[in-house]
Amino acid sequence: MSKNEHFINPGYRKRKPGSSITSLLDIFNGIRKGNTTALSMGITLLESELPLHREQAAELIRFCLPIAGNSTRIGVTGIPGAGKSTFIESLGKKIVADKKKLAVLAIDPSSTLNKGSILGDKTRMEELSKLPQVYIRPTPSSGSLGGVARATRESIILCEAAGYDYVLVETVGVGQSEIDMYWLTDIFILLLIPGGGDELQGIKRGIMEMADLVLINKAEEERTNIALQSVKHLQNALHYMAAHPYGHQPQVMPISALHNQGVDKVWTTLQQYINTWKEKELFEQKRKDQSMYWFKHALHNGLQDIIQRRPDWNKKYIQLQKEVEEEKLHPFIAADHMLRFITNDQTGE
Amino acid sequence: MSKNEHFINPGYRKRKPGSSITSLLDIFNGIRKGNTTALSMGITLLESELPLHREQAAELIRFCLPIAGNSTRIGVTGIPGAGKSTFIESLGKKIVADKKKLAVLAIDPSSTLNKGSILGDKTRMEELSKLPQVYIRPTPSSGSLGGVARATRESIILCEAAGYDYVLVETVGVGQSEIDMYWLTDIFILLLIPGGGDELQGIKRGIMEMADLVLINKAEEERTNIALQSVKHLQNALHYMAAHPYGHQPQVMPISALHNQGVDKVWTTLQQYINTWKEKELFEQKRKDQSMYWFKHALHNGLQDIIQRRPDWNKKYIQLQKEVEEEKLHPFIAADHMLRFITNDQTGE
Repeated sequence: MSKNEHFINPGYRKRKPGSSITSLLDIFNGIRKGNTTALSMGITLLESELPLHREQAAELIRFCLPIAGNSTRIGVTGIPGAGKSTFIESLGKKIVADKKKLAVLAIDPSSTLNKGSILGDKTRMEELSKLPQVYIRPTPSSGSLGGVARATRESIILCEAAGYDYVLVETVGVGQSEIDMYWLTDIFILLLIPGGGDELQGIKRGIMEMADLVLINKAEEERTNIALQSVKHLQNALHYMAAHPYGHQPQVMPISALHNQGVDKVWTTLQQYINTWKEKELFEQKRKDQSMYWFKHALHNGLQDIIQRRPDWNKKYIQLQKEVEEEKLHPFIAADHMLRFITNDQTGE
Repeated sequence: MSKNEHFINPGYRKRKPGSSITSLLDIFNGIRKGNTTALSMGITLLESELPLHREQAAELIRFCLPIAGNSTRIGVTGIPGAGKSTFIESLGKKIVADKKKLAVLAIDPSSTLNKGSILGDKTRMEELSKLPQVYIRPTPSSGSLGGVARATRESIILCEAAGYDYVLVETVGVGQSEIDMYWLTDIFILLLIPGGGDELQGIKRGIMEMADLVLINKAEEERTNIALQSVKHLQNALHYMAAHPYGHQPQVMPISALHNQGVDKVWTTLQQYINTWKEKELFEQKRKDQSMYWFKHALHNGLQDIIQRRPDWNKKYIQLQKEVEEEKLHPFIAADHMLRFITNDQTGE
């Protein structure tokens, strides 16, 4: 395909022999061989919002899909200071000790594309970042929220195509990102610190109910008792939050990531969850549900964008929105007007 | 307007003198005067899904909107057996004792349009139904879920135009209806019975966090202690569910609707909530947020309908959906395909 023959620099229509411009096929072949430079180039491509890059990214995803899907996708979320990096180091070493390859995608809302944050992230997980079986990739989340979810989901596909057995997605527990996390990963871990509910500041409503595992980190030294109390309170709270859609109650556990306490149990529990889901065919079902969720979600957002991009539609939309806000027009009737306008059936106007 | 001159029977283009066919304007005038027969006819019109009736309903809403909006809208939800009717009788009598008019819209998923269920409902709230200041209207929820929400929201407008000071919407806590309830009412009451979490069976996940007031009903006789325990557990659970979007923590109270215990406190708490929200201008803000929610919600559903109604679009949609499900196509890319198809920009196909 000739359109794969240029990448990043759209000026190159034909690849010159010995040229340093990497083709899409080169990137794909590199990814397939587990080359991390190729993987990083691929992810950079996915993160771009330029139309040409979006087209190329779609091609790359199409190449990777048939060899993707074989990892276990783990989401880890928690407020700043909950000890996410320490926990990921600790869990990551268990994964590597089991002779598995691990990719970590760290979504950091405060980072940008500069190298400072990338280096910063490598420092955060010092031991992991030195292991050849581990790939760590910070993802700036400065783009639109939908864009981050899309880039993350596509990055997971690339990591899987590169042969990683576990893909761990880390987010800071703010805004929409943890809700997205539930729809991006197979198992979703919420990391909290001991204390009477104050640890929930900054955690979005409803997150607790989405978690498969709630970990009270820093359950060490003088905090041990208060941590055990937090575990008890949370177990009770979760009991009142009704059952999980895939039929299980979230588990609550105290851990000390710093002292490597309880992380073994997290690792075995996590594997038990996955095995049980696979036995009951819930694993595949959940992934299908997630795919449908993102299809509908992206379609919905795209339709909104179409309305906003067409000046006449957008003008009508803004006018109706204003009338609804001022309570001059009933919202359902305003929606009817908009739909008629879109379908050019303006008989009722 | 000539199109208001016929209603129900579309054959009548002109109203004959002495004709029994009621015009839309007659209904509106009846509603404005507080005539309950006119109000019931209006609500029946809103519930119809025939296109002509939808148009007439839109007209009626347009007439009513300028004189609507002045009630306090209360949502009450709970599982069957939680004692909703007894609670509504008890609360309703307090409202009437305060010289206020009350409309009760009861959404019953099991009822149909036959008179049996209507009579059944009147029997359920025997004392209330005899009071001239009280209007009780069962709403069958056999239609589409979006349809029920729409009919309920429009019915509230009509009740307000008829001069009711309080509009109480009752739902059985199953399915989507309680989530809708949050977006339909000013204050949302969840009714539970004492017990260790089992009372939550049938209550959808996330409902607890949406409630402004959680009432443990049947806190009477031998159940008093267990009810107080439930209150304590729930208070703790709600503490872990983080803050309400309008800045308050839901309150949990034990009541006995049967013995009229605690309902006074519910009534004063409810008024305190409303007054505080009005002082802080949160009351109007919430209503505006609700209007925007329904506008976007209805528009989203309508766009989905358009896709499904156009055979070529629907065919494409079903095909893409299948490919996403079979993991042959990435959901975001499938959404892109669909959007291009819709906008007739099929260059990428």
